[in-house]
Order: sequence, then C-alpha cells, then structure tokens
Amino acid sequence: MTLSEEQRRERPIGVFDSGIGGLTVVSALRELLPNETIHYLGDTARVPYGGKSAATVERYSLEITGMLLEENCKAIVVACNTASALALPKLMESVSVPVMGVIRPGAEAAVAATRNGHIGVIGTRATIGSRAYERAISALDRAVHLTVRACPLFVPLIEEGWLEGEITDRVIRQYLAPLLDDGIDTLVLGCTHYPLLRAAIGKFAGDEVQLVDSAHNCAIAVSRLLEAEHLRRDSVAAGSLSVALTDPPDVFLEVARSALRLEIGEVRLRPVTHAAAPIRGN
Amino acid sequence: MTLSEEQRRERPIGVFDSGIGGLTVVSALRELLPNETIHYLGDTARVPYGGKSAATVERYSLEITGMLLEENCKAIVVACNTASALALPKLMESVSVPVMGVIRPGAEAAVAATRNGHIGVIGTRATIGSRAYERAISALDRAVHLTVRACPLFVPLIEEGWLEGEITDRVIRQYLAPLLDDGIDTLVLGCTHYPLLRAAIGKFAGDEVQLVDSAHNCAIAVSRLLEAEHLRRDSVAAGSLSVALTDPPDVFLEVARSALRLEIGEVRLRPVTHAAAPIRGN
Repeated sequence: MTLSEEQRRERPIGVFDSGIGGLTVVSALRELLPNETIHYLGDTARVPYGGKSAATVERYSLEITGMLLEENCKAIVVACNTASALALPKLMESVSVPVMGVIRPGAEAAVAATRNGHIGVIGTRATIGSRAYERAISALDRAVHLTVRACPLFVPLIEEGWLEGEITDRVIRQYLAPLLDDGIDTLVLGCTHYPLLRAAIGKFAGDEVQLVDSAHNCAIAVSRLLEAEHLRRDSVAAGSLSVALTDPPDVFLEVARSALRLEIGEVRLRPVTHAAAPIRGN
Repeated sequence: MTLSEEQRRERPIGVFDSGIGGLTVVSALRELLPNETIHYLGDTARVPYGGKSAATVERYSLEITGMLLEENCKAIVVACNTASALALPKLMESVSVPVMGVIRPGAEAAVAATRNGHIGVIGTRATIGSRAYERAISALDRAVHLTVRACPLFVPLIEEGWLEGEITDRVIRQYLAPLLDDGIDTLVLGCTHYPLLRAAIGKFAGDEVQLVDSAHNCAIAVSRLLEAEHLRRDSVAAGSLSVALTDPPDVFLEVARSALRLEIGEVRLRPVTHAAAPIRGN
C-alpha cells in the first residue's frame, strides 16, 4: 500500500525510552509541535538501559522500535541518551523512517554555547562509557576540551521524587564539583531524566555554567527533521499523546506527570514482542 | 536417565538473583557449606527486578531458573527478595527440585529475634508492595506489629560503592528514622544488596535494634533443606563457585568482590534464552 503525501504526514511520531525519563522529550515536543500526534513507548519491563551492554541496548532498542513501527509511526525519536549512544547507527540502518537521537542535538547546542571551549558532559555509565558525546562534539569542533562523568545516583534520586533537598544537593556536589573545578562553562545534561534536576543542578553550578538540556535540543532537531523530510502535519488541530509501557508504571510516572505538567491519559500496557526481525515501517 | 543417590548429591546448587546482589547469599553459602558447588546466575540484562510487576518478575524468574536447571542443579536458591516475594509459588510448582527463597528464613529469624514484638522490614518497592514479609511474619506470629518501608535509593548507593560516608548516612536516616521513631527493635534487611550497607545501617540504628540479614538466614535454611532432602554433598573437598551473568558486569561486580571477599573466577556471559516452557530438572 502506498500512502499519499498527506496520509504520510498525518501519522504519529514514535518516541521511546528505556522508561519514563523520555517524557521530558515528549514535553519539549508538545510545546514545540503541538499539532503532532505522539506515541510514546517506555520499556519499563527492562529499565534502566544505563548500566547494560551495547549489544543488549541495541537489541532492546530494535524491539521497541519495531513495536512503534507497528503503529505506523512516520519518524522515530530515541528519547534516551543510552540508546542514542549505543543503538542509533543500527536503528538508522534497520528502519526506513527517519530516526533522531538526543546526542547530536545536545552536542551541537553545547558547542554553540561554550565560550571558553571547555564542556562538561554527565550521563549514565553506559552513555559516558560509549564516548558518544566525545565523538559528536569532537566532530563539530576538535579544539573543544571535554570533562565527562557518569552520575548513576541521579536517575534513582529523580525516580524517588527527591528533586531538591539536602541529600540531592550533596549528591550533585559529589558528582559535579570536580567538573566545575576543572573549569567547564557548559554542562550537557546527557540523560533524559536530568532536566527534572535542572533547578537543583543550576543552583549548584551557578550562572557562569550554561546547562544544555538534551531533551529540549532534541525536540528542536525533530522539528527541523520533519520539515526537511516534508513530514510536518498540516492540520492546526491539536495532536494527541498516547503513552504505553512494557510494564505497569511505578510511582515515577506521578513524579514525571506533575514535574512536567504533561496531560497523560490512560497508560496502555504493551508487553515486549520478541520479533524475529525488525519491521521496516512505511 | 536415573541418577544414583551419590550423583544426585554431587550436583551443584543453583543460585540466582536479578543481578549481582545475590552474591551476598553466595558468600554466606560458601561459609556455611564450603564443600558444595555453586552455580550463580545474575540476570544483569534485566536488572533490577525491584520496580517491576509481579507478572514480569515471575516470567523472568522462570526463564533464569530454566537456565540453571540446564546445568543440572539439585536445588534452586532464589537469592533475590523481589523474586522470592513474587515468583516463589510459581517456581515451586514449576520445577521438581527443591526451591528456597529468602523471605521465610528472614521472617523466622526476625520473629525469633524481636523482644518487643515490633519488627521493621525494608526492601525494594516490589518486595514491600508484595506484602510478602507481612504474610510470612503474620503466619508465624499474628501478634507481631510491623512497620515497612521501601528504600529504592539503597541499591544504587551500594552499586556505586558508596557503602559509607555523609550521603549514605543521610539517605539511611531519611529512610529509617520513621521506623526507629515507631519503636521497632528488629530490622529485616529485605534485599540481598543490603548486607553491604550493614555497617552504616548499624551505626545509625544502634545496638538496641537487631539487624536480620536475609542472606545469612537463607544460607542456614538451604543447609537444612539439603539435609532434609538428603542432598548434601558427601565429599569434604572444597566445592567450586562459577558465576554467570546475562549481560557483562559493570563496576558493581568489583564492589561486591571486594566487600564480600569472594573468590570469583572468570565470569561467563549467558544471554537469556526465552524458553517456551520451563525445564523441570531431574
């Protein structure tokens, strides 16, 4: 079946993450592209991806993308730094619709923002270990100096809803003081959960350090990609948001819902299907 | 093929956990039963189980148990409170070898330890939400009063290797102060990771509160079970330990290795096999 141009544009954008954190990207997309329909799929049955191997993250990402393509998505947004770092090349070669991750948009925004040429990047162990931000930033500007750090306590702190307070401030100081001492003037929040700690991180880092939110920059890049591919929906009517998870949500969904002020309706449960081969999409 | 009694006793004990935390049970088993051979399988590809649904934890536990039975294990030790809380009945009905979890041994030790009849239980969200300790303790002594609390930050703190220090002390106080204020005199460490925080928790709780280590009590129960089933290995030669994981280990393996002083040789990688039906064992 061949779709008309208009039918192609009417289709939803598929967004996925290892869990609920990618809703920060959804929130940014809703703000920027309010007339687009979004299907979000969080792989809560296997969350987090952040400590897992490249091969495993790649396999999980292909399975989740296959499930989004079954819903006829016109583009795939990898709203997860770990999956963007480890699975993006494989996804791009395996599916026929455009795919956008969060690493390159964040890298571009950081290179544009730095004045002293010294950028810090924080993320999960897997994202930092992948050196994906190093590669992306150095491809844009070889002269930039980078200081990176894995912050594995941030995600559980956020999921517990401890977005501020003494413990949160101390964990932030423990992780970030060496980066500030090192002289960074720009800090990439290289995990889609981290925008929820933005206020607390900003309080510690001060006005001298610019925070680069990978969720916000990803949404801008998606908007440009849809324009370039002639996939922007024409209708001015508001698009809808549907959220599905591979395992029932825990308390973090409430944390995200209230912190992001997102209108999330009923959350569907979609167990992982172990497809023999990835589905290519239209 | 029918095995002789001696061949049956020579077989390994299979121990599994969602990840590396169950090595605290292995450490206790090695101490108590040094001549037994142990096969440990950690499901690091899907760790943690602690925030996941009962149906998902049950399915994962059946798959991992099937992989241990392929190695001809004579008994299965569920070295994971979440899996013990959510999957034990299903495992016991699905396999023909004896199965031991960590909940009942911990509940028995706690009931034996309390003097004022007021016990605290801490664990992951899934373990606490399952109310498995409530059921096990109330079946032993209906008069016991319980105060429970999920402590989702403890596992990531331990996996980061922050076993002591200011942040760890504050997180412990945040979670445990209400239980102490409530008047508990016994605290069940209802997660196999938690023995690694025993010193820091003991420092906060003080000598008045007895800590019940579910790993240690599980090892005692396994020893009794093997005796009762005539499955104790006869040989006095030291048994071996083999460790396999469903995804390559991260830094936490080093934390556990050094904190537990365990001789772990080469770690094998065994990707999850999605068996159509669980294997019943000999």
